[in-house]
Amino acid sequence: MSEARPDPGRVTAVYRVQPGSATPEDRARMIAVEQTVEVPEALIPPHIEKEIVGRVESVTPDPEVPGASRVTISYGAELAANLFDLLAVAIGNAPMYGGVRLVGLEPPRALLESLPGPNHGVEGVRRMCGVLGRPLLATALKPQGSTVSELASMGEAFARGGGDLVKDDNNITDDFEGFRDRVTACAEAVERGNQTTGRRCLYVPHAGARADELERYVEFVAEIGLPGVLICPMITGLDTMRALAERYPLIFMAHPSLTGVYTHAPQNGVAHGVLFGTLFRLAGADISVFPDARGRFQFAKAQCEAITERLREPLGALRPAWPAPTGGIGPADVARVCGIYGPDTVLLIGGALLGHPDGIEAGTREILDRIRSVHPEVSIEPSEPPRLSLPEPRRLAFRRDWNWEGRDSSPYKDAGDLTFRGVRRVELVGKFGERTRCDLRYFEVEPGGHTSFEKHLHTHVVIGARGEGVLLLADRRMPLRHLDVACVGPLEAHQLRNESDEPFGFFCVVDHDRDRPLRAE
Amino acid sequence: MSEARPDPGRVTAVYRVQPGSATPEDRARMIAVEQTVEVPEALIPPHIEKEIVGRVESVTPDPEVPGASRVTISYGAELAANLFDLLAVAIGNAPMYGGVRLVGLEPPRALLESLPGPNHGVEGVRRMCGVLGRPLLATALKPQGSTVSELASMGEAFARGGGDLVKDDNNITDDFEGFRDRVTACAEAVERGNQTTGRRCLYVPHAGARADELERYVEFVAEIGLPGVLICPMITGLDTMRALAERYPLIFMAHPSLTGVYTHAPQNGVAHGVLFGTLFRLAGADISVFPDARGRFQFAKAQCEAITERLREPLGALRPAWPAPTGGIGPADVARVCGIYGPDTVLLIGGALLGHPDGIEAGTREILDRIRSVHPEVSIEPSEPPRLSLPEPRRLAFRRDWNWEGRDSSPYKDAGDLTFRGVRRVELVGKFGERTRCDLRYFEVEPGGHTSFEKHLHTHVVIGARGEGVLLLADRRMPLRHLDVACVGPLEAHQLRNESDEPFGFFCVVDHDRDRPLRAE
Repeated sequence: MSEARPDPGRVTAVYRVQPGSATPEDRARMIAVEQTVEVPEALIPPHIEKEIVGRVESVTPDPEVPGASRVTISYGAELAANLFDLLAVAIGNAPMYGGVRLVGLEPPRALLESLPGPNHGVEGVRRMCGVLGRPLLATALKPQGSTVSELASMGEAFARGGGDLVKDDNNITDDFEGFRDRVTACAEAVERGNQTTGRRCLYVPHAGARADELERYVEFVAEIGLPGVLICPMITGLDTMRALAERYPLIFMAHPSLTGVYTHAPQNGVAHGVLFGTLFRLAGADISVFPDARGRFQFAKAQCEAITERLREPLGALRPAWPAPTGGIGPADVARVCGIYGPDTVLLIGGALLGHPDGIEAGTREILDRIRSVHPEVSIEPSEPPRLSLPEPRRLAFRRDWNWEGRDSSPYKDAGDLTFRGVRRVELVGKFGERTRCDLRYFEVEPGGHTSFEKHLHTHVVIGARGEGVLLLADRRMPLRHLDVACVGPLEAHQLRNESDEPFGFFCVVDHDRDRPLRAE
Repeated sequence: MSEARPDPGRVTAVYRVQPGSATPEDRARMIAVEQTVEVPEALIPPHIEKEIVGRVESVTPDPEVPGASRVTISYGAELAANLFDLLAVAIGNAPMYGGVRLVGLEPPRALLESLPGPNHGVEGVRRMCGVLGRPLLATALKPQGSTVSELASMGEAFARGGGDLVKDDNNITDDFEGFRDRVTACAEAVERGNQTTGRRCLYVPHAGARADELERYVEFVAEIGLPGVLICPMITGLDTMRALAERYPLIFMAHPSLTGVYTHAPQNGVAHGVLFGTLFRLAGADISVFPDARGRFQFAKAQCEAITERLREPLGALRPAWPAPTGGIGPADVARVCGIYGPDTVLLIGGALLGHPDGIEAGTREILDRIRSVHPEVSIEPSEPPRLSLPEPRRLAFRRDWNWEGRDSSPYKDAGDLTFRGVRRVELVGKFGERTRCDLRYFEVEPGGHTSFEKHLHTHVVIGARGEGVLLLADRRMPLRHLDVACVGPLEAHQLRNESDEPFGFFCVVDHDRDRPLRAE
């Protein structure tokens, strides 16, 4: 990719830089400074120059574009500790210089080791479909404006025809209750189709929603046992897809909405392979949808090849992902597309199937036959999509000794500068695979004991259960008796004390994902 | 903006379209179809053509670029119910055609009425600073690699010099605990500076983090009483900023990282005014940072003017926002920049202040003098930044009649097809301004009564409190007695019944933001 062999301990970014008023070497240095310290040269202390500023590894003539230069810059791995940072350091402000395009990207080893990448990848999706040896055939439920039953019928017909994967059109969005109803109907229809064939066509709904509601859509898809979800990562934010993919063991199919902004100006933005290949795969895409070179969009063959290569090449321990070329592929194109992309490809065919003269079901059969004539199919028993399972036991019976069946009680130990005295804890809910936003714990404080005097951003709700204690909240004292309820707000210093002669016990409800407590002063 | 007067009942998008193999009219129609239904013409039923497909309002020669066309397309308001949908319908796939640039955007009235826009806008930020009449002076804490105390000293010196707003450099990111420590130190330093001047310099930290941790950073800033936060909306996702701005009453300052991809190819992407102006303001930016035309980046004067106009023009009931030109502005540029942008402008000056020969404090004074010589200052008493307040009472004392002091008990009524019998509810925590992720309620069921047999995506944790009841969980029955704990998982049908002769009461912990229950079958 780059002229120099990239250092796996660093981020290596390769830019195509157009000629400008400064020399290519000066433009390279400007980028290296801009992406890291963003101050005039004179204000860079030597240790920051050495440790932080991007290192220009090489400046050579661009092999593809006469007059342009290819600039390789490496950045310390600590500047790309996550995808947010990677986007900021590798792209960030640089495109504002004009004539700067990111054409190559090697993430550092440390980042690769921290990102799980595609949940299923090529092999996992094949196992769920039960199809080896040939490209998969996918379609989209559309157009927007169709009724739920029309969309469901399309999905059923495609499944009856033996299709492998059907997604919602990315233009179809609803409020959550509408989504729940539509997705349920389409899932049932695809399942009816599967019953007739004995095959496993996968239904992948589109999760497109307000940022603060998006997770609920993905969670629903996972909860009802569907295998995957379609996401528009350049609208939601790339790292949003990564976060969802880490939390839900689904197939993530990435849609190209907004990517044209990144890729389509040849002197600016981000090269196709880097965006649809490297970045989408880092963010957990199992399937990357992009326009085929012969379709209605202006993609070149070399760009499609670069995407495909980036999706399949070794990238840490990340699974290879599927290229899903689309955009005006018809029956007559199938053999060509299969030949170019090879068997590990999803052919996403929308219009030509929906408008097939013999109908969707027969059209699906015809196209599958064409695919099989290029790459023969080997069928295996489809594996179940991973199900989110709930833990047992679901009910924790209270015992008279103030413990719960199935749960251990453990003494609460000092941590860092936080000191406890005479406290035991029973983790009741949250640590055992329940999918609650909050954990429930029971704490019991011996006579004379206390919890740590601490503060943190997350809130507490406490419910008195046994005996009587004292809640210190900043400079206030309040009693906490049986079934009294109290709230501890964000960053409020607090402590629970037992000043009585009997054990003092309370329930505590707390965010499952929470910050570490600080000692209060 | 567009040739035709835009219909406020629809989205109006104006594209600059380069000449191609199809006529401008055909290209316009292709975009109108692509952005809405994405199927071949022959597959569009008449009612979908009428209700859904984008309407080409006009195709005229582009007034700025010879040979290009200006295409105005309107879309139904229901296709832009939120910012996710707006980005999808107005940008979406269109840039993949190549030579398509969004140069104008009029959101529909319905969307404008649903978006709060900037929390403070021009007037609100002025009141917090206590400065009327002149541009505000802002700087950035940098370079990355400096120690916390170095950064804090810079902030203190700037505040001592009378500066108005200091933000973190966008390149500075940490894990949450590091962020907490650094931001606390810098906030204290700026406050020390303020003590010496009696002015109110605002400190605005950069919230840059993994998607699943970002909110915690913003929440911390709000909790410690800082006035605002810097966000990179094109990395986090534009609607992520909107969601945060709706939840936290802070000043949102938008950083241009990644925007160069959108704006810098003149034939592609999104025009400067639309992105930095309209879209950022819709997403809640109080202050929009962008490179000044004379700085190191390739911004043209007309582009900066378009941004400024979009930030200030009438846009529903949204507050006007601040343009914050930056990028190599030095003392000698101040009068010019003040003259061009006018008084309602934030001058963001980094390097020239950090490297000022007389030091940051004196440099700040000098630059403020230059600003005041163009636009005289009127000082007012600074208003306090909005504080997140916690509700009183914080402790809810349990009463022997199974109620809590300060909380009402209300009968639980049937809703839709959900039927309850003999149930009363006490809302304990979550509806009174507490900032918990989960709500706590107490339910009591009369002998013979029951809750609705229902299911929903959110989970329940129930704790038996009074008497004995029965939890139905799908086809299982389990008793729930005093201090028994049980979990109801996502989409599990459940009901709580009282088959005894005494009241049955239980606590229920539930997500604060949750989906509406469905009747279970």
